[in-house]
Amino acid sequence: MNLLISVIGGSECSAADAQAAEAVGAGLARGGATVVCGGLTGVMAAVCRGARQAGGHTIALLPGDDPRAANPDIEFAIPTGLGHARNVIVARAGRAVIAIAGSHGTLSEISLALVYGTPVVALNTWDVSLNGVAPPGLVRATSAVDAVEKALALAAARRV
Amino acid sequence: MNLLISVIGGSECSAADAQAAEAVGAGLARGGATVVCGGLTGVMAAVCRGARQAGGHTIALLPGDDPRAANPDIEFAIPTGLGHARNVIVARAGRAVIAIAGSHGTLSEISLALVYGTPVVALNTWDVSLNGVAPPGLVRATSAVDAVEKALALAAARRV
Amino acid sequence: MNLLISVIGGSECSAADAQAAEAVGAGLARGGATVVCGGLTGVMAAVCRGARQAGGHTIALLPGDDPRAANPDIEFAIPTGLGHARNVIVARAGRAVIAIAGSHGTLSEISLALVYGTPVVALNTWDVSLNGVAPPGLVRATSAVDAVEKALALAAARRV
Amino acid sequence: MNLLISVIGGSECSAADAQAAEAVGAGLARGGATVVCGGLTGVMAAVCRGARQAGGHTIALLPGDDPRAANPDIEFAIPTGLGHARNVIVARAGRAVIAIAGSHGTLSEISLALVYGTPVVALNTWDVSLNGVAPPGLVRATSAVDAVEKALALAAARRV
Repeated sequence: MNLLISVIGGSECSAADAQAAEAVGAGLARGGATVVCGGLTGVMAAVCRGARQAGGHTIALLPGDDPRAANPDIEFAIPTGLGHARNVIVARAGRAVIAIAGSHGTLSEISLALVYGTPVVALNTWDVSLNGVAPPGLVRATSAVDAVEKALALAAARRV
Repeated sequence: MNLLISVIGGSECSAADAQAAEAVGAGLARGGATVVCGGLTGVMAAVCRGARQAGGHTIALLPGDDPRAANPDIEFAIPTGLGHARNVIVARAGRAVIAIAGSHGTLSEISLALVYGTPVVALNTWDVSLNGVAPPGLVRATSAVDAVEKALALAAARRV
Repeated sequence: MNLLISVIGGSECSAADAQAAEAVGAGLARGGATVVCGGLTGVMAAVCRGARQAGGHTIALLPGDDPRAANPDIEFAIPTGLGHARNVIVARAGRAVIAIAGSHGTLSEISLALVYGTPVVALNTWDVSLNGVAPPGLVRATSAVDAVEKALALAAARRV
Repeated sequence: MNLLISVIGGSECSAADAQAAEAVGAGLARGGATVVCGGLTGVMAAVCRGARQAGGHTIALLPGDDPRAANPDIEFAIPTGLGHARNVIVARAGRAVIAIAGSHGTLSEISLALVYGTPVVALNTWDVSLNGVAPPGLVRATSAVDAVEKALALAAARRV
C-alpha cells in the first residue's frame, strides 16, 4: 500500500508558490509518497506536475461531478459531487498534509486535518493561534525540501 | 421561516465562556433567531440553555448516530453519523456564525464558514491571518451582546 | 426533545401522492412528531403543508446553499451545500422514515436508512428485494394513516 | 487520466460471488480500468485481488480513519472518516458501477449511482422496481465477463 500525503493550496498562486509546489511534488515522489489533492489549478496543478515528472502517483478529490475537471497531471480523478465539503476528505486522506499558500479553502483543510489529528506542515501559508499559541500539530517549514522531509517524518511516526 | 444562526465552540469551556455563550443564546432568542450547533457539551450546551430560557428554538447537528447524545436544551436533534465532518453542515447551516473560544473543531467551522461566504463573529476565539492580514469575513466582537448584534446585522445584510 | 420522523418522496408527485403526503404530515403532527425532509417541492411540500396545518414542526435539509429554496411550509431550513449527498442526512435524521412514491433519490434514502438500521415505512413506493426477499426493515403501509401509525410505533420501539 | 470503475458488493460473500468479483477485477484491469471500491473484505477484497493479479490499479474509499483497514490488494487507501456516508463517494467515483451480490450498503450504492446518473451493471444483486418497472440505468449482467464488457461500454458512452 502506498503512502498518501495530501498537498493543499489555492487554485490561484504566485509563481514562487507554484515553484515550491512543484518541488514538493517531486520530493514526495522521490520519497515514495503519492500526492492527494483537490485536483484543480494553481498549487494543485503544480504539485501534480512535479510529482508526475519525478515518477510519482497523483490522486484528485474533485468538488464537482466530472472527472475531466482534473488538471492534466492527475492520474486518478475522483469526482465527489460534494462541493467545498470535499475539503473534509482531502484533509482526511493523507497520513500528513503539506499546506502551501492558499485561501479560505486551504485554511479549512489545515484546520480539518488538525481536527483529525493529522500532522500539517505549513509553507508560506496561514497563521493560526488561540490566545497567542499556535496548535502543536501545525509545523512550519522553510522550503519545499524542508516541507517534504518533515511531512515524510511525521507520517512515518504516526501510530494511529 | 426562521432565521438560523450557527453558534460554535468547544465541548469544554471556561466558566466565563459558558456565561458568554448563555448570554449569546438568550440574545439570539430575543432577536428572533434559532440556534444551530453541534449539540454536545460546553459552549454548545450553554448557548442552548440561554436560548431556551429566553423562549428560542435550538437545533443540534450531532456527529454520531444517537439523538439522545444531545444536550438537554436541544429541541431538534439531528444525528448525522458523519463524525467530525458534520462540522461542514454546522458551518453551512446558519446565515451567520458566532464562534466562542473552542479548539480545533471550532477553528474548522470558522474556516469552513469563510469558505462558504458566511460571516463569522469571533468572541474570544482563534486568530487567523495570511501574511499578517485577517480574513475580512471574520469580525471580532467584544462581548456577548456585541456578538449577537453583529451576527444579526450581518445575517440581515446577506443577499445570497 | 422532539421526535423526528423523516418523510421522503419525489419533488414531483401525483395529486393522490400529494394528498397522501399531506395526510401523513398532519398525522405525524398530531402524533407529536416533527417532520424532517429534503425541503423542496412535491411530496416534500405536501407533507410540510399537512404538518404545519396540524400545528407540527418542519425541518428541511436542503441540497443547495440558499435557505430560501425551501418550500413555504418549512420552519427551519438547513442548507447543506452537499447536493444529492444530503440524502444521507435526511435518511439518518429521523427515528423512522416514511417513503411516499418518489424517484431515484427516494430509493437512495430508503436504502441509506436501511444501512443505518432505521425502520422504513413504504407507501406506494419502490419495491426492493434480494433473491426474491424484501429487507425486513422495509415495512409496507396501505394508507397515510397506516403509515403514520407504523412509523410512530417503529420509532417508539427503537432502543438504539 | 485513468478510467475509474466502482465495484460494490458485500463485505461477506459466497465463494461463487468472490470468484465472480475476482474475474471482474481481472477483466477491468485488462480493459485498462482502475478499480475503486470500499476497500474492505468480501467482494471488495476479491475484486482487488483479481485486478492486481492482472496488473491493474486499486483505490479504496474506507469508512474509517485508518488506511491500514484496507484489504491487502489496495494500492491507494483513502480513509474518509464518514462511516456509511462514504458510500456516496464510492457511488460517485466511477464512470460506471458494477454491483455484485451485497447487502443494504450495496443497495444504497446502486441507488446513489442512479441518482448521480452513473450507469450500474448488476450481477446477482438487488432487484429494484417502481410500479413494476426497473430503472433504465440499472443493467443486468449474466457473468463477470458480461459485466465488465457492459461497464466499459457504458463508461465509454458517457458524455457528461
